[in-house]
Amino acid sequence: MRQFVVCGHEAPTTPDFPLEDLPGAAGRLDLLARCVNAGLFLSHGIREDSRVHLVLRDEYVVRFDGATARGLHPDERSTAARVRQALEVREEAIGHMPAEVAPGVELYRMGLAETLDALAGTLVQLHEDGEPAAEHDPPADPIFVLSDHSDFTDAEAESLADRVDARLRVGPEAIHADHAIAVTHNYLDTDGYTSY
Amino acid sequence: MRQFVVCGHEAPTTPDFPLEDLPGAAGRLDLLARCVNAGLFLSHGIREDSRVHLVLRDEYVVRFDGATARGLHPDERSTAARVRQALEVREEAIGHMPAEVAPGVELYRMGLAETLDALAGTLVQLHEDGEPAAEHDPPADPIFVLSDHSDFTDAEAESLADRVDARLRVGPEAIHADHAIAVTHNYLDTDGYTSY
Repeated sequence: MRQFVVCGHEAPTTPDFPLEDLPGAAGRLDLLARCVNAGLFLSHGIREDSRVHLVLRDEYVVRFDGATARGLHPDERSTAARVRQALEVREEAIGHMPAEVAPGVELYRMGLAETLDALAGTLVQLHEDGEPAAEHDPPADPIFVLSDHSDFTDAEAESLADRVDARLRVGPEAIHADHAIAVTHNYLDTDGYTSY
Repeated sequence: MRQFVVCGHEAPTTPDFPLEDLPGAAGRLDLLARCVNAGLFLSHGIREDSRVHLVLRDEYVVRFDGATARGLHPDERSTAARVRQALEVREEAIGHMPAEVAPGVELYRMGLAETLDALAGTLVQLHEDGEPAAEHDPPADPIFVLSDHSDFTDAEAESLADRVDARLRVGPEAIHADHAIAVTHNYLDTDGYTSY
């Protein structure tokens, strides 16, 4: 299992946002939608061993599960519509019980720290000061944590510092989170650039 | 200089398409827009040494130049709007003279073969039967050629066979063109996974 946790700092927490302005009025939901795409899609199918968790302002998490997702499309608008649909049923998420949104899509009422505590695997922060990925064997059941266009908040950084098993960097350039996910999948697919 | 040439087989060649249905009515323009994003964007800037050429049904090419582009955004909708703007001035592209669309964006009246002949560099086809990228030094001034969600047509494959310098594969999984571009940038950024 591969998992990606992406923190959206300006993401909506109510469904009253327009699908026509994802970068602006919807708080960079375009980027988060592309992270879902990069995390789950193959050329002609879905990565069934992959999950993407979008953390919306440390308040809600929308979880997309490749194994059970149905009717997902790779474009930003349709994924953003799924997030909107999740926020429409947010009152049904109580305690640790998620709201069911659509097959393979659930909404949880929790922030980053609780999300990380609920996941089982090797927690990896993608970070520019990390060890080069190519010099590090891919960990078992990795959970990669990324931020959107802005850095982790102090509270998030603290939650991570207490929990991460490794810090890796995937190259010398700072790249968008969705591109980092594509690169990370490639690192895992090739078993650390050894098996094509 | 790094260049990416992406063939869009169902892409629009007139500007009368809706920005609300990029995957459908606009012929997978969502994917092509993401290729522009993956080709040009860094986390907080543009790759000035990169160009993306979208080949629209072997009829027009919209060229995005990182060095001179202004006002580009990473989301699909705004990039698709730029393509629509390019098609609005398509009558101004005559012979090999492009139509000027916006800073760093031009429209050419040409197909894949003419485009490849006009570019200077090492032509690389990304192909599942190619040599593993990790075992191949990154070529100088690479021009990577990719297809959208469907395979190259016979005519395109023939144009490529006559011209390519190398065939590389970037992993064992068939992935979307925009993800392949992100992975390819990483391969170049790290000088073939040797320099982080």
